[in-house]
Amino acid sequence: MARLAGVSRATVSYVLNNTSAVRISEPTRRRVHEAAKELGYVPHAAARSLRAGHSRMVLMPAPTFPVGPLYSQFISELQWALGRLEYTVVQFGTVGLHGAEAARAWAELRPVAVLVPGSDLGPKDVAVLKRSGARAVVTLGSEAVEGAHALLMDHEAVGLCAGTHLYARGRRRIGVVVPEEPGLDAFSVPRLEGVRRALHGTEATVTDLPLAYEEAAAARLAARWRELGLDAVFAYNDEYAMLLMRALQDEGVGIPQETAVIGADDLMLGRLLRPRLSTVHIELPSGRDLADLVDRAVRNPGAAPETHTVLGASVVHRDST
Amino acid sequence: MARLAGVSRATVSYVLNNTSAVRISEPTRRRVHEAAKELGYVPHAAARSLRAGHSRMVLMPAPTFPVGPLYSQFISELQWALGRLEYTVVQFGTVGLHGAEAARAWAELRPVAVLVPGSDLGPKDVAVLKRSGARAVVTLGSEAVEGAHALLMDHEAVGLCAGTHLYARGRRRIGVVVPEEPGLDAFSVPRLEGVRRALHGTEATVTDLPLAYEEAAAARLAARWRELGLDAVFAYNDEYAMLLMRALQDEGVGIPQETAVIGADDLMLGRLLRPRLSTVHIELPSGRDLADLVDRAVRNPGAAPETHTVLGASVVHRDST
Repeated sequence: MARLAGVSRATVSYVLNNTSAVRISEPTRRRVHEAAKELGYVPHAAARSLRAGHSRMVLMPAPTFPVGPLYSQFISELQWALGRLEYTVVQFGTVGLHGAEAARAWAELRPVAVLVPGSDLGPKDVAVLKRSGARAVVTLGSEAVEGAHALLMDHEAVGLCAGTHLYARGRRRIGVVVPEEPGLDAFSVPRLEGVRRALHGTEATVTDLPLAYEEAAAARLAARWRELGLDAVFAYNDEYAMLLMRALQDEGVGIPQETAVIGADDLMLGRLLRPRLSTVHIELPSGRDLADLVDRAVRNPGAAPETHTVLGASVVHRDST
Repeated sequence: MARLAGVSRATVSYVLNNTSAVRISEPTRRRVHEAAKELGYVPHAAARSLRAGHSRMVLMPAPTFPVGPLYSQFISELQWALGRLEYTVVQFGTVGLHGAEAARAWAELRPVAVLVPGSDLGPKDVAVLKRSGARAVVTLGSEAVEGAHALLMDHEAVGLCAGTHLYARGRRRIGVVVPEEPGLDAFSVPRLEGVRRALHGTEATVTDLPLAYEEAAAARLAARWRELGLDAVFAYNDEYAMLLMRALQDEGVGIPQETAVIGADDLMLGRLLRPRLSTVHIELPSGRDLADLVDRAVRNPGAAPETHTVLGASVVHRDST
């Protein structure tokens, strides 16, 4: 490359590493860049970040739970917003690694910031990440972790909304679908708790209904529906609501007369059901706000961790309740 | 760390870098690893890969199209299978970058292999990736790219199946929904082509129906359904099929008597509709097979690129056709 540009090898290195200590004329700089382009030279991000002492990489462990359309959209908005701030978003699949092991695997990549959804991270893991150069660790979950910024996703609020709505509609024997699929506990347990909290101190009862996302499982639950004696059900989300509602309708259970059904997530499919599905609309944090938080934290790594509650929930009342 | 382990700094470096040139006793090795653990030392993946000349990183550009549940499942199965072979899967969001620019951004991370879904990669981009150290480039798309292994996803086969089925059911005026959402052309155009190919040389007609994934858009299309004079529709996938079927039913169009409807992807929701939705079941390549291909290619980078056609398609006939 030095030969092609007609300069010394040292000059090539200074230009490509963007060294400011050495004065190099603009025409020389341009000649080097042109030669680099002609030869198809691609800088090595890792080498560059070794020299710089840090990278622009924001690491997001790939979620280990089944991701719904709402969450997918949130992630792509976030990637877009971080991309605008010139961060590189890397989703890192650490299959089978948990807690400390996972944190070490992330630390090996030397990200400038780590964004951990649905975390089982402890304060020690946060310290490992920071010691390895991460300027900011941000968790998205139900609890703050010492040393990390926290976006608190209050899934109890989702259940609280649903429970309050069903009670206001005159329902008193309320079932709550709890998915049997692994990885969803972080969402389903607080949602169930929220319903209990909404009905605490009233005469209403809450019954949890474990359910796998399968037609046969829904049919079995529907077959014993009348024994259960429930007059309403909060079905975890719209997809489980659709599954259960169909099974109940196939059993001849009148909706909403006999049983009111409410979902969550406000997906398109709820509006396409008959009766139209009531749901809890969930407001996730905006990708742009979250990207700004990451950027602020990276620029000012010494600042005290911020905690924000970011999940908004409101009932969309349609025909099924 | 040398002090804690009671050894020289050179020994620490030999042990942590796993240097084979220098003989170090097992107890010393163990002492160094224990000291490293106690001090919370995490190796730097980039530094290690610089020394080794390559990494175990398999890079997958994050897809830029809206990802459905079928594809999500494929990706997580693939990550799992590559993880078992001790590769690290990194999904890299390169928002707004295309073709050569994107390939250069990927090359900067010095992956050992690159797996590109829905590619707009050219032969030059493959060369850039290889020159920067990628031992294998694998594309998942409708066409092979020179120098890269190709998994051909033949989406025409999906349309071919649907068209053949509708014709066999006696339908002759066939609509094909083409989503208006950006990024889906790579799938929707070959699916439409497949329907045309199925009906080529017959008396049947094919009408393409652009449709946005919105209730109002579906209602507008349904309102002019009888003018269109169609007796069947292949709705791109099950989600669009559900959207259109609801709008047609709200207009009083009898399904399947007046109009047969078929989707694709064989999602759960199709079985929950009434009438139950006919669909094209799509068999994606198994994550394990794809992981094996990547591993084979990495071990033998000089081998000629392999081309496999990996998409199986078959009709699941239910009540809507």
